[in-house]
Amino acid sequence: MYSIRTAEYCTRMKSLSLGFLGCGNIGGGVYRLLHEMEETLLQRDQLSLRVAKILVKNVDEALAINASKGLDVPRTLLTEHAEDVTQDPSIDIVCEFMGGEQPAARFMEDALRHGKHVVTANKVALALNWSALQRAAEENHVGLWFEASVGGVIPIIRVLNINLESDRIDRIFGIINGTTNYILTRMAQEGKDYNEVLADAQRLGLAEPNPATDVEGMDAAYKLSILASLAFHGRVTYSNVYREGITGIKAQDIAFGQEMGYTLKLLGIAKKQGSTVETRVHPTFLPKDHPLARVDGSLNAIFVHGMYCQDMMLQGRGAGDMPTASAICGDIVEAALCEKPHYPTFANTEMPSPDFAFTDNWITRAYIRLSAVDAPGVLSRVSECFAKEQVSIASMLQKEDTKEGRVPLIFITHPAHEQAIQRAIAHLDPSICVLEQMIRVEE
Amino acid sequence: MYSIRTAEYCTRMKSLSLGFLGCGNIGGGVYRLLHEMEETLLQRDQLSLRVAKILVKNVDEALAINASKGLDVPRTLLTEHAEDVTQDPSIDIVCEFMGGEQPAARFMEDALRHGKHVVTANKVALALNWSALQRAAEENHVGLWFEASVGGVIPIIRVLNINLESDRIDRIFGIINGTTNYILTRMAQEGKDYNEVLADAQRLGLAEPNPATDVEGMDAAYKLSILASLAFHGRVTYSNVYREGITGIKAQDIAFGQEMGYTLKLLGIAKKQGSTVETRVHPTFLPKDHPLARVDGSLNAIFVHGMYCQDMMLQGRGAGDMPTASAICGDIVEAALCEKPHYPTFANTEMPSPDFAFTDNWITRAYIRLSAVDAPGVLSRVSECFAKEQVSIASMLQKEDTKEGRVPLIFITHPAHEQAIQRAIAHLDPSICVLEQMIRVEE
Repeated sequence: MYSIRTAEYCTRMKSLSLGFLGCGNIGGGVYRLLHEMEETLLQRDQLSLRVAKILVKNVDEALAINASKGLDVPRTLLTEHAEDVTQDPSIDIVCEFMGGEQPAARFMEDALRHGKHVVTANKVALALNWSALQRAAEENHVGLWFEASVGGVIPIIRVLNINLESDRIDRIFGIINGTTNYILTRMAQEGKDYNEVLADAQRLGLAEPNPATDVEGMDAAYKLSILASLAFHGRVTYSNVYREGITGIKAQDIAFGQEMGYTLKLLGIAKKQGSTVETRVHPTFLPKDHPLARVDGSLNAIFVHGMYCQDMMLQGRGAGDMPTASAICGDIVEAALCEKPHYPTFANTEMPSPDFAFTDNWITRAYIRLSAVDAPGVLSRVSECFAKEQVSIASMLQKEDTKEGRVPLIFITHPAHEQAIQRAIAHLDPSICVLEQMIRVEE
Repeated sequence: MYSIRTAEYCTRMKSLSLGFLGCGNIGGGVYRLLHEMEETLLQRDQLSLRVAKILVKNVDEALAINASKGLDVPRTLLTEHAEDVTQDPSIDIVCEFMGGEQPAARFMEDALRHGKHVVTANKVALALNWSALQRAAEENHVGLWFEASVGGVIPIIRVLNINLESDRIDRIFGIINGTTNYILTRMAQEGKDYNEVLADAQRLGLAEPNPATDVEGMDAAYKLSILASLAFHGRVTYSNVYREGITGIKAQDIAFGQEMGYTLKLLGIAKKQGSTVETRVHPTFLPKDHPLARVDGSLNAIFVHGMYCQDMMLQGRGAGDMPTASAICGDIVEAALCEKPHYPTFANTEMPSPDFAFTDNWITRAYIRLSAVDAPGVLSRVSECFAKEQVSIASMLQKEDTKEGRVPLIFITHPAHEQAIQRAIAHLDPSICVLEQMIRVEE
């Protein structure tokens, strides 16, 4: 037996060179994983993967940083010139770890045009430059892999591209940003305010010094545009995604929601009915017993519903250097073994799919907190504004908590059109009540 | 734009013929899905998939059954001769829906040897004949696809084969049999006995007339042997899997477990530490707030833990004709588009991997229900038996429920070696107490 294995092993062994664009936390993680798994990959897949070149901003600084992390990367691998990676004829697969749109997208396109497979976790560069990257890949008969771009280790890209390729997906939604989930989880558990928890998350390295991309929902919107495009088989661009972040969330809304049986999450939601598509990222109340309501901290989770597959839920680490490295290395191994990548046919344009009618008048339930004058007749006049727009109230909470003659008045509506809810809010008479908060509610 | 798409469309269009082995619920579902999605697959993937031949036991009976289900399969497609499917040179992909080990495995091997890709959901045939099928596939440069063989729509096969190919998995466990999960869920919710719920499940078509394969844990053991083989990259055979079914479970144990904070599930559990592997299927108590404890009815869910990816959970429909058809058609589309399938290198033998040391002396906690004489000193003598084997008790429940001079005495132990627990039980003095039930507990 052993001799047969050895014979096969020699015949089939495949040796490939990798080039890295960037070598921060994720790149360092991939370098470490490939090193630790070198022997194993040789045994499992007869695959020898060698890192041949790494683009860094400054070689000396990179050496110092790597040394401080205990990462032993030889100086000879480092370069400050992108074309040493993207254009080196000996490099087979280019892995991009730079983050941000440019120059990452330009470098990736250059690598594809030089006949290299590209593996990336960069949702921004992909969401904004998909068509150019896809075209470069197709024209050069190489692949563009991006499993780690959405949901970290969650295998959602492959599931949409392969497992559900012959299904008809009508809903995909989930928790696709770990930073905001961490902040909201701690706000809920500790009753603390947004700014306090954010500062803590920044101290712990779980939020960026400039947290806007995460807390304003941009990161989730980039990811949702990728998911919705794949799920609905047509281009959904970043600008097609409605977006609201978590910066306006108050501890008291989380507390009132909990009292009414709901947990707050920042969700990315994409739905398709007929040819009408809605894509939105916003804080969302979920019933406490909803499986997504229990996905805490920096975990990510994604729900998919298809006509044939019905419900599916996938959950895992959405961030972290080694989980992300695991997902990226899955792509690297597939790129190495696969001779013919599968291209989504729609990705040849940056224009929103002409097959879709994008709507911002989706149907939703809403949690509404008003600050109302504590006087007789107010409740009836408020109710009237909603009734006029056919928005009916499912539950209500009024607190004996008068401050400066005003009380908090909280409604949760039955499902209604977004615009009807907005019109009802506009009808409110500012002399008797003021809108303090509106948060959408999903089932 | 349209003309460009049309031009590409014509150049790339791929037309393939499918042969079906069997056409029961799942086969009928796949036939229906491919028919309903025909236009869509043409647009999405420039793929034309035509069912050319279907093996049935009896053509006239099959026509009558199809008619009764509203499935319009032309008589000309039906044959009673397997070689019309497995050996027809015009057929590219053979889909097996017969179930059971033989003749399904023999027919699949014949199809592979005639240069056809094979797609199957048949865990029995695969678990018992993997090496022969794999060898036939490799030698003929075709693929063997089996995503639907474990967990229905849950994408676990592709996740293990591709996404986590470069990770090091040490635990995989989950609910991988829908029938037993349905029965246990209803027993827990309604406090009913096993036989009553089983009879109900049989009436509803959720359990087979002969339910042994499901309720004795064979189905889960076949599936676990496939999962563990892929996860640990070495052959774990069906006979390597320890197996206990749910037929001995009493309503009172479920109730006592609930009282102590646990939910009962039939789990498949595979763990690897160093080169030591344990694989077991048995009823298992899980803490009520464990994500798997909330997976009810005919849902399946699988947990994976890897060195790099950390925790991942995948959940979805484990059975049902259309969910299974969705998973199978994902495989069909991949078989159609992919020119080079990925073979697990270990699958060339039916012998358990020589790299593994299989153990049945795993570490577990245990729920133990004794029927004890209601007399002073009994508890102390029982405790002594466990103390002697270093098995320590984590919690205890004694009921004032004397029947014929005996009381139920319930322990949950701390983690201990399985064999130590068994020895402790063997020490019990039958004149003062009798073992009524032992159920393992996972965290």
